[in-house]
Amino acid sequence: MATTLITGGTVVSATGRGQADVLVDGETIAAVLEPGSVLLGTDLKSTVDTVIDATGKYVIPGGIDAHTHMEMPFGGTFASDTFETGTRAAAWGGTTSIVDFVVQYPDQNILDQYHAWHEKAAGNCAIDYGFHQILSDVQDSSLTAMDELIEEGVTSFKLFMAYKGVFLSDDGQILRAFQKGASNGAMMMMHAENGAIIDVLVKQALEAGNTTPYFHGTTRPWQAEEEATHRAIMLADLTGAPLYVVHVSAKQAVEQIAGARDRGLNVFGETCPQYLYLSLEDQLGATSEEWGDFEGAKWVCSTPLRSKHEGHQHHMWQSLRTNDIQMVSTDHCPFCMKGQKDMGIGDFSKIPNGIGSVENRMDLMYQGVVTGQITLERWVEITSTTPARMFGMYGKKGVIQPGADADIVVYDPNGHTSIGLGKAHHMNMDYSAWEGYEIDGHVDTVLSRGKVIVDDDQYIGAKGDGKYFKRGLSQYLV
Amino acid sequence: MATTLITGGTVVSATGRGQADVLVDGETIAAVLEPGSVLLGTDLKSTVDTVIDATGKYVIPGGIDAHTHMEMPFGGTFASDTFETGTRAAAWGGTTSIVDFVVQYPDQNILDQYHAWHEKAAGNCAIDYGFHQILSDVQDSSLTAMDELIEEGVTSFKLFMAYKGVFLSDDGQILRAFQKGASNGAMMMMHAENGAIIDVLVKQALEAGNTTPYFHGTTRPWQAEEEATHRAIMLADLTGAPLYVVHVSAKQAVEQIAGARDRGLNVFGETCPQYLYLSLEDQLGATSEEWGDFEGAKWVCSTPLRSKHEGHQHHMWQSLRTNDIQMVSTDHCPFCMKGQKDMGIGDFSKIPNGIGSVENRMDLMYQGVVTGQITLERWVEITSTTPARMFGMYGKKGVIQPGADADIVVYDPNGHTSIGLGKAHHMNMDYSAWEGYEIDGHVDTVLSRGKVIVDDDQYIGAKGDGKYFKRGLSQYLV
Amino acid sequence: MATTLITGGTVVSATGRGQADVLVDGETIAAVLEPGSVLLGTDLKSTVDTVIDATGKYVIPGGIDAHTHMEMPFGGTFASDTFETGTRAAAWGGTTSIVDFVVQYPDQNILDQYHAWHEKAAGNCAIDYGFHQILSDVQDSSLTAMDELIEEGVTSFKLFMAYKGVFLSDDGQILRAFQKGASNGAMMMMHAENGAIIDVLVKQALEAGNTTPYFHGTTRPWQAEEEATHRAIMLADLTGAPLYVVHVSAKQAVEQIAGARDRGLNVFGETCPQYLYLSLEDQLGATSEEWGDFEGAKWVCSTPLRSKHEGHQHHMWQSLRTNDIQMVSTDHCPFCMKGQKDMGIGDFSKIPNGIGSVENRMDLMYQGVVTGQITLERWVEITSTTPARMFGMYGKKGVIQPGADADIVVYDPNGHTSIGLGKAHHMNMDYSAWEGYEIDGHVDTVLSRGKVIVDDDQYIGAKGDGKYFKRGLSQYLV
Amino acid sequence: MATTLITGGTVVSATGRGQADVLVDGETIAAVLEPGSVLLGTDLKSTVDTVIDATGKYVIPGGIDAHTHMEMPFGGTFASDTFETGTRAAAWGGTTSIVDFVVQYPDQNILDQYHAWHEKAAGNCAIDYGFHQILSDVQDSSLTAMDELIEEGVTSFKLFMAYKGVFLSDDGQILRAFQKGASNGAMMMMHAENGAIIDVLVKQALEAGNTTPYFHGTTRPWQAEEEATHRAIMLADLTGAPLYVVHVSAKQAVEQIAGARDRGLNVFGETCPQYLYLSLEDQLGATSEEWGDFEGAKWVCSTPLRSKHEGHQHHMWQSLRTNDIQMVSTDHCPFCMKGQKDMGIGDFSKIPNGIGSVENRMDLMYQGVVTGQITLERWVEITSTTPARMFGMYGKKGVIQPGADADIVVYDPNGHTSIGLGKAHHMNMDYSAWEGYEIDGHVDTVLSRGKVIVDDDQYIGAKGDGKYFKRGLSQYLV
Ligand SMILES: [Zn+2]
Ligand SMILES: [Zn+2]
Ligand SMILES: [Zn+2]
Ligand SMILES: [Zn+2]
Ligand SMILES: [Zn+2]
Ligand SMILES: [Zn+2]
Ligand SMILES: [Zn+2]
Ligand SMILES: [Zn+2]
Repeated sequence: MATTLITGGTVVSATGRGQADVLVDGETIAAVLEPGSVLLGTDLKSTVDTVIDATGKYVIPGGIDAHTHMEMPFGGTFASDTFETGTRAAAWGGTTSIVDFVVQYPDQNILDQYHAWHEKAAGNCAIDYGFHQILSDVQDSSLTAMDELIEEGVTSFKLFMAYKGVFLSDDGQILRAFQKGASNGAMMMMHAENGAIIDVLVKQALEAGNTTPYFHGTTRPWQAEEEATHRAIMLADLTGAPLYVVHVSAKQAVEQIAGARDRGLNVFGETCPQYLYLSLEDQLGATSEEWGDFEGAKWVCSTPLRSKHEGHQHHMWQSLRTNDIQMVSTDHCPFCMKGQKDMGIGDFSKIPNGIGSVENRMDLMYQGVVTGQITLERWVEITSTTPARMFGMYGKKGVIQPGADADIVVYDPNGHTSIGLGKAHHMNMDYSAWEGYEIDGHVDTVLSRGKVIVDDDQYIGAKGDGKYFKRGLSQYLV
Repeated sequence: MATTLITGGTVVSATGRGQADVLVDGETIAAVLEPGSVLLGTDLKSTVDTVIDATGKYVIPGGIDAHTHMEMPFGGTFASDTFETGTRAAAWGGTTSIVDFVVQYPDQNILDQYHAWHEKAAGNCAIDYGFHQILSDVQDSSLTAMDELIEEGVTSFKLFMAYKGVFLSDDGQILRAFQKGASNGAMMMMHAENGAIIDVLVKQALEAGNTTPYFHGTTRPWQAEEEATHRAIMLADLTGAPLYVVHVSAKQAVEQIAGARDRGLNVFGETCPQYLYLSLEDQLGATSEEWGDFEGAKWVCSTPLRSKHEGHQHHMWQSLRTNDIQMVSTDHCPFCMKGQKDMGIGDFSKIPNGIGSVENRMDLMYQGVVTGQITLERWVEITSTTPARMFGMYGKKGVIQPGADADIVVYDPNGHTSIGLGKAHHMNMDYSAWEGYEIDGHVDTVLSRGKVIVDDDQYIGAKGDGKYFKRGLSQYLV
Repeated sequence: MATTLITGGTVVSATGRGQADVLVDGETIAAVLEPGSVLLGTDLKSTVDTVIDATGKYVIPGGIDAHTHMEMPFGGTFASDTFETGTRAAAWGGTTSIVDFVVQYPDQNILDQYHAWHEKAAGNCAIDYGFHQILSDVQDSSLTAMDELIEEGVTSFKLFMAYKGVFLSDDGQILRAFQKGASNGAMMMMHAENGAIIDVLVKQALEAGNTTPYFHGTTRPWQAEEEATHRAIMLADLTGAPLYVVHVSAKQAVEQIAGARDRGLNVFGETCPQYLYLSLEDQLGATSEEWGDFEGAKWVCSTPLRSKHEGHQHHMWQSLRTNDIQMVSTDHCPFCMKGQKDMGIGDFSKIPNGIGSVENRMDLMYQGVVTGQITLERWVEITSTTPARMFGMYGKKGVIQPGADADIVVYDPNGHTSIGLGKAHHMNMDYSAWEGYEIDGHVDTVLSRGKVIVDDDQYIGAKGDGKYFKRGLSQYLV
Repeated sequence: MATTLITGGTVVSATGRGQADVLVDGETIAAVLEPGSVLLGTDLKSTVDTVIDATGKYVIPGGIDAHTHMEMPFGGTFASDTFETGTRAAAWGGTTSIVDFVVQYPDQNILDQYHAWHEKAAGNCAIDYGFHQILSDVQDSSLTAMDELIEEGVTSFKLFMAYKGVFLSDDGQILRAFQKGASNGAMMMMHAENGAIIDVLVKQALEAGNTTPYFHGTTRPWQAEEEATHRAIMLADLTGAPLYVVHVSAKQAVEQIAGARDRGLNVFGETCPQYLYLSLEDQLGATSEEWGDFEGAKWVCSTPLRSKHEGHQHHMWQSLRTNDIQMVSTDHCPFCMKGQKDMGIGDFSKIPNGIGSVENRMDLMYQGVVTGQITLERWVEITSTTPARMFGMYGKKGVIQPGADADIVVYDPNGHTSIGLGKAHHMNMDYSAWEGYEIDGHVDTVLSRGKVIVDDDQYIGAKGDGKYFKRGLSQYLV
């Protein structure tokens, strides 16, 4: 098989950095070596098929985005990225694995859905992919399916405390799923918002004529998130199940998670770039010439962007530093403004929920390194190493070590990336949620299982490069 | 230079484990490779000078004990381990680096002391060593010395809130040292006990005829530790200095540290094996035929062993799991019962304070893996990787990666170690604080910078193998 | 009208005590005077119709039990005390007012129920009574009824987070009721247990053959109470409604309430004597010759008695002292063992929930004064003054001052009361939940609006003495 | 003796309000009666010597200012109010009792000082007065003096964590005093600021040329107060002594006190009007034509005014509402700008510390009722009832009930008070700290032990009206 030597770079891990060469043999990493690459008399550089010069650059494990929704059906439409377009965009941005959510709605058969998702993804992906399973309206059959899916490499299950009639499970259903998770080791993921509260507030807002995207934010107050987060934690406490709270946006929810950790529980939290950078006022409340006060629809997602006057964003960065929030995913769920988001003109509750960021996550988080919010090591940890450990992929993914899949990114701290339409934007969206963001770094080269798929601002991979990744149980539990 | 290949083992890091071979070239690690060791046509196994078969065993970065007091002068006597005996014992136990404390008493010149410590250590050590500097009674000259010592690789400074007239600095002195630390990046270490309170309680106990070792514990109540810990944290908050609290034993002190972390501060805590396993009642209150109720003197150290009825030990293990306590050192400061500890018969306040564990730390903490208190990865993290990062040694120490010093331990999970006199006990002490402890694992082979110094239950190194390690600033700050 | 002078006693209020005579003129207190009773030349003692000598005794405002369920319909049976028997028993025990709960089940008309309760009570009560209104399954009509009922003097409304299909309102319904409370000033009362969780645990316990009363306790774990308490607090935070959590039994729930108070919210908690004195192990787990392991049915109530090993009882006393719990009611809801509780033999979930204590509350709490758990003033505060303030009765009730209703108890600290069948037990129950409790004090004389209804261990009142009390809004809000 | 009837008013207590007449006979309250004053045939109004018409007004127990420093020696000068001028000003403002601090400096005999203070006060006061004792540099003799002073009615002792060489006791000294307090029931008062920290910061500020009053605030950061408060609480926890923290200004210190209460400790906090209304920026940073940037000297006191951007003032009002702060005193310690405060021009550390508010406290706090910060009842509680209970005066002071001293204020909610020089300002100060404050209420009439001393904007009392009040132990402990 083909061999590649990445030379001269600084290999960065979750715990530190060092000068080292990385030897790739076929799909995996064969060795990590002292730079210079003359090993016991063998001049590797002249022996290998390909040499990639990473001098002055960071060599990092490929990004893992553990929360995406490719072509997800929602409210009569579909998320605008297919597995093909979405994973290709991910590759552009230095992400070499995603974990996508298999959707089950009530009355749908879980395993049927699981197989349907395989069909959608197989042969279409640019990078490797795994699946989480969504469980709606948990029944006995759901509990049985959990065991079966773990065998299939689906070891994490997402429940919802919101979206009545669509995704919602009541607390008794959640309890039973958590009991199952406690016994079979599955990670229980939670969309933690109190839907019953939100439904009333939304109805009241619309009745009061408050119909613009701004009110999407005000009708999902932090109390609804904090409450549901606390409730999920109590269920984790009661059952012993590990809990992973998705898309945490409220600082008060973080405090609940941090408090649970202080008590020794296996409770974890994920945030997303939007909760670190964007706000209720600046985005949901934005206006534009094109869209007027509907401009904010671009950033309608749930949990919502939060008020900058309450300090959530500042606190979220801090929580990333102190590991009270363990990782950053995107909750990538893009919709176009025209033909999708615009269904909600005059009624924010009809706006498809979601933001597309799968391409931008590595860059956006790197900018946090540049501005001093996080260290270089922490960048690798929250975007790759912890996602791998959290979801049972570590060893093959999330680390540069012998035997690991050669999912590697060469990142140039002296490069530059401009995000926006016509610039770094390869997602299937007619707008960018990150228009105008400038990044002081650049994804130079991306290897997926040993194959260079992005290089020199060219995508040189092909659909079907990416394979299904059969995950194990979480490797992050205390 | 000589080459060694460690084959067939499971390399364990702070974030995971994997099958890999480790190639050592001279003093450093040259490569980490896929097992099998045929690299681009080169059969390493037949090429290297030495092959170490680690099949079925763990290959870990050598232990780092960041808190030792070799031949420390205290109360007219000296800690019974010299740099020679102490570091040799450390090697026996799989520890390949120590960071020892240079002692300065008031009126002593700090740099003179620093040089004196170099003289004691140079040419005598079995393993590499670094120094922290103790600052007593902080003066302007102390602040100047801090800058000079950082240049020398002494980047951490210990202050005391107890031991009036010996080590104590008042809060204004501490403030000034912390201000300096905030500006030059030094790690501020704190012995956090309120000495003024303790001095009164000790006096009252002795006056009341409460003279046995048990009262060493009761006169240093958790409130004295919690209070000082909180005070140190406020000084860190006020100045911005990083703070490292040594030998944390009270759960309430842990809560203060955890709270400070939740607020985003660079505040860290270390504990020691004695605070995880031993107690006021079982050890300080022990009696024996030989020593009667003075038996407890064997475990007189400060902070003291705490009551098992208050749950400190249980909580400390939990804090290790959740990273509210970041690492485990020994506070190795051994004294013999005869001729040293026995000075305190009839007056516990005259018992030299200290326990010797430098040899036992790796084993004792591994037993926590066996009993499910911590994971295998966490074991490596708290005993090696975090100490290296915390104290500016990472890259050369604390990790198995190319370019790192070849400080490597082959640890056998199927081996067994019995601790106690005549068994695993090579420290210069006439008793073992851990007599009778049985460990379900064994240190098989120890390499220090590429040289095998312990193998097959033989010490095959020599004094002087160990060199001074010039440390950088902490690599663990958020 | 008739005049009475209570002389020589120590009048105790929520803030202090002092020697004073109390002059009653008809139904109200006319004056509180310096002892001796010669006022500007008038020798009151010889002028009044009746003199009550309270020398050496406490003169306190009559007890107010703000949580009773007389003849409440539940599961096909009725609480065994009628308004007649229950209020008479209350009078025996020094309680001169109750606030009872009007029950509404789904589909019942709230105002019809309110009037039905008036019919039950009118002409039957020994002491004054007010009403709270239970709101099940909140609808628009419920919100309208709240406004109407406030006009009628029903200013507090109880919602349930448990008892699906019977009392439960979902979080959206609760939100709307709280919004109404925030606008009209009503006190929102909450039965805070997560019913969805409990229903699953009960089902699982029964399926596992765990059918005895003990499992009533284990299937309602503290997490279910803490969770619901926190959720109710978040709804109070979100809406601004005042919140009163009934029958708090778990220390973790207290912590939630205390935390909410620390944040400045109008959040209050009530406990009951059973949560201070009794436990899962000693009562729910009790056995007897007569009832075997069904003995525990005597103490089946919800929230349940909690484990003594977890320290709830100890913490609850502390919370009473620090005003983190503001008052003590009984949740009086008696059922006989024969013919009622025994419906649950073989299935604890069929045991009617409730304990009868309306007669014993004042004595049981006074015993807390004797044992040093609370002060004498705090006794008056938690049993009378705060209930009056909390529920808009203060001025007429809860205090000894001119213009107040002459609801007065003369309590003898040198007397003695033995509780149990054939002793101090006038409730319509075939057992006493407090059998064998001995109280170092005694209710000597009870006046209800100026009329002596209990004296010298004789009940000398009549049914119909008690009138409906039209309450105002809470006088306890911050 | 003379009799007075106060008719038609609303008597307000800590728990409620009601229409009542108050009959005064000589120095004490003889009765509280239903309005109308015809009692058993006696028309009181025509019988008494004097009738005071309080129709439409509040009748409240006279204010108690538990923290004053009349003619206190400090830094070579004396607080500008003598017992005569200060207590007269207090009377003007509706305060009828003060508790002043006997000062002891190191090497002074405590009992000598106590007697000296009696000499200063005797025959000079307009209102009753008690004493706290300051203990500097605690010695064995101090502990003995505590017992003796309790016999004299001095039941509270103030210690300092600041002012080295002047007032400071170290933690061991404080421990011993607290142990004594735990055994004899004395209330331990604490000036909780870390003086060692402050001394360094002050020195550094002056060296940096930061000499204006503004830097008085910045050199006493909240961390110094929070730290000392926590330390004092730990000493209270360790010893069991009741603790009363004086002049709390930082919200973080409040949190420590609230947390201690949540754990059941007898820990209390007092704040002062300046910490509710004034700030670092608006007052300490003020400039004026007359004084330039020295204007801020008018508000130099310790603890200092805090930054309004940190929300301390807002949080302090909240804490008053929730009883996390129990009472409001003034820390009255006035100095004139000319000849006193001006000693600190060019060096803020030489500005005598103190603000004069003894006259304004009742009005300033009443304005909090007007603005909705506190209830009317809470106003009475924090200014009179709790001070009386806290410091062993209740029954005679702090309440309107028979047998109490007739210290009564008739307060007109329809009146108005303008504070400032030439207006409501009778303190011996050449400026008012409250210049320009307008109060929507007015002190109409003040009775001190039955004698009208202020009426109709006239002072009609005389020096020597006020007597020493021998206090008992605290009546506020849980
Ligand atoms: Zn979601
Ligand atoms: Zn999602
Ligand atoms: Zn130490
Ligand atoms: Zn040490
Ligand atoms: Zn209930
Ligand atoms: Zn009830
Ligand atoms: Zn002070
Ligand atoms: Zn003062």
